[in-house]
Amino acid sequence: MISRLIDEITKKNAPVVVGLDPNLSFVPGFLLEEAVREKGEGLEAAASAVLSFNKGIVDAVYDLIPAVKPQIAMYEQFGIPGLRAYRQTVEYCHEKGLIVIGDVKRGDIGSTSEAYARAHLGEMKVGGSVTRPFDEDFATVNPYLGSDGVKPFIKVCNECDRGIFVLVKTSNPSSGEFQDQIAGSEGRPLYELVADKVREWGLDSMDGSYSNVGAVVGATYPEQGAAVRALMPHSFILVPGYGAQGGKAEDLKVFFNKDGLGAIVNSSRGIIAAYTKEPYSGRFDERAYADAAREAVLDMLRDIRENALGEK
Amino acid sequence: MISRLIDEITKKNAPVVVGLDPNLSFVPGFLLEEAVREKGEGLEAAASAVLSFNKGIVDAVYDLIPAVKPQIAMYEQFGIPGLRAYRQTVEYCHEKGLIVIGDVKRGDIGSTSEAYARAHLGEMKVGGSVTRPFDEDFATVNPYLGSDGVKPFIKVCNECDRGIFVLVKTSNPSSGEFQDQIAGSEGRPLYELVADKVREWGLDSMDGSYSNVGAVVGATYPEQGAAVRALMPHSFILVPGYGAQGGKAEDLKVFFNKDGLGAIVNSSRGIIAAYTKEPYSGRFDERAYADAAREAVLDMLRDIRENALGEK
Repeated sequence: MISRLIDEITKKNAPVVVGLDPNLSFVPGFLLEEAVREKGEGLEAAASAVLSFNKGIVDAVYDLIPAVKPQIAMYEQFGIPGLRAYRQTVEYCHEKGLIVIGDVKRGDIGSTSEAYARAHLGEMKVGGSVTRPFDEDFATVNPYLGSDGVKPFIKVCNECDRGIFVLVKTSNPSSGEFQDQIAGSEGRPLYELVADKVREWGLDSMDGSYSNVGAVVGATYPEQGAAVRALMPHSFILVPGYGAQGGKAEDLKVFFNKDGLGAIVNSSRGIIAAYTKEPYSGRFDERAYADAAREAVLDMLRDIRENALGEK
Repeated sequence: MISRLIDEITKKNAPVVVGLDPNLSFVPGFLLEEAVREKGEGLEAAASAVLSFNKGIVDAVYDLIPAVKPQIAMYEQFGIPGLRAYRQTVEYCHEKGLIVIGDVKRGDIGSTSEAYARAHLGEMKVGGSVTRPFDEDFATVNPYLGSDGVKPFIKVCNECDRGIFVLVKTSNPSSGEFQDQIAGSEGRPLYELVADKVREWGLDSMDGSYSNVGAVVGATYPEQGAAVRALMPHSFILVPGYGAQGGKAEDLKVFFNKDGLGAIVNSSRGIIAAYTKEPYSGRFDERAYADAAREAVLDMLRDIRENALGEK
């Protein structure tokens, strides 16, 4: 699956993923009002508004980007209707040719991890019927439980040509509390030990010159990014934290390999809530939220091409 | 919420939780056949069979135990129908007076963690309508992202009188890969540093003499259990790994405080799949799976009361 992601990145010259994290505070009021008129107040209306919002964004940007990253928590908060909207979002994105990275941060052990892997990346057989429950192409995975938790995902990736991004160094301010602890006989930060494992796990799922096992490293930590880039030469890095969380394009250089590949940069709020923020809010009202998102993607692409990839 | 759990444990003299992890391989064939006749082959049938299975187990054991722990991965693998069965299982358990520990192992940062917390422990307001999306009483939480990831859960616990169990030292063989790394200026294993944080976080959510912030420590690691027991005197420990994973009742002594409280021991497969295993399989066929589960709970209670709590 990583080879397909690379093809799409190359074709669109866009190592960029748009995060579909539709916090209800970003969803324009008119969409929620329409949904409430149809479904009444409650979770069904919220889920319906979120799906409409996503479709608007996707329609406006799908030709520019290779992939989207829906954050499942933002759907799970609306219960079953919310998760149905998540599933429908995945399906809609696939119809538009987009690769879907499910930001699910799942992780457990043994058969339980395998159940998560099948839910998000695999197939379920019940009698003679085979279904893809959530049908993402990639999923994010939490490594705290060790190899027992990650390997079942890799097994399913290999069966179904899918991929994962393992949390290595997350973008948030307190990510260092545990991830930066100096550990092991050589006195290296824990996230480097996780990166070593990502490389090792990745060898079991190579797909061309890259592995289907990637890593998550926040744009807010470029020094650490440079270190783990070297530790995992065959792993793509999914880089959150650009834009709203403070990561700058110049900081992203270190996440890429010399082949110009190896990283894909996420922006969520910076794109989907662009209509609420400068420099877009003056030019786009809430009904033009999708146009603002397109403008923000174009600006992000220009910034990353010029300042991270050094294009003229 | 921890005070309610303590009341129920005391009333039933049962520091025990039954894990509702209905891997389809444990669900008796006749239940799946009935469900397929009604719903056709596919996820709806699997979800329906799982719900019937759970109701049978719950009806057979609810008077003996304070709480159940559904493992959401086993439902998520059946997609939307599976998660509906999870939600219905929670509701059914509440009707029977059981406390529900959602084994969801969620964790993210900031507003995303808060979304997970609201999904599982809190309320969602959409217009004038207020709903509890999944409505568990406790949830398990992954600490890898640090305080940014955990504090939003505690905020929701305080608003809605709910609780969490933070993964500290998990029961699986490879849990040591990262959790046992010797870290920090004092050279202590990482899981102890997490335990320190659990104590600190717990002070923000005291409920009587215990905190709503508990920990998960595997029965398979009694030495480590003793160490973290001392580090987190006000935290309940949710102890998986008894029975099927190899943890013995004698090993559980160290997880309890001198007040006889402070731990709750989970068994999943050992109870719900008892009818497939010795010493139950000879006496119970698949149609008597619930009776076998009751027998297994009674045996587990006897074992824990005698060998972990030292009752005569």
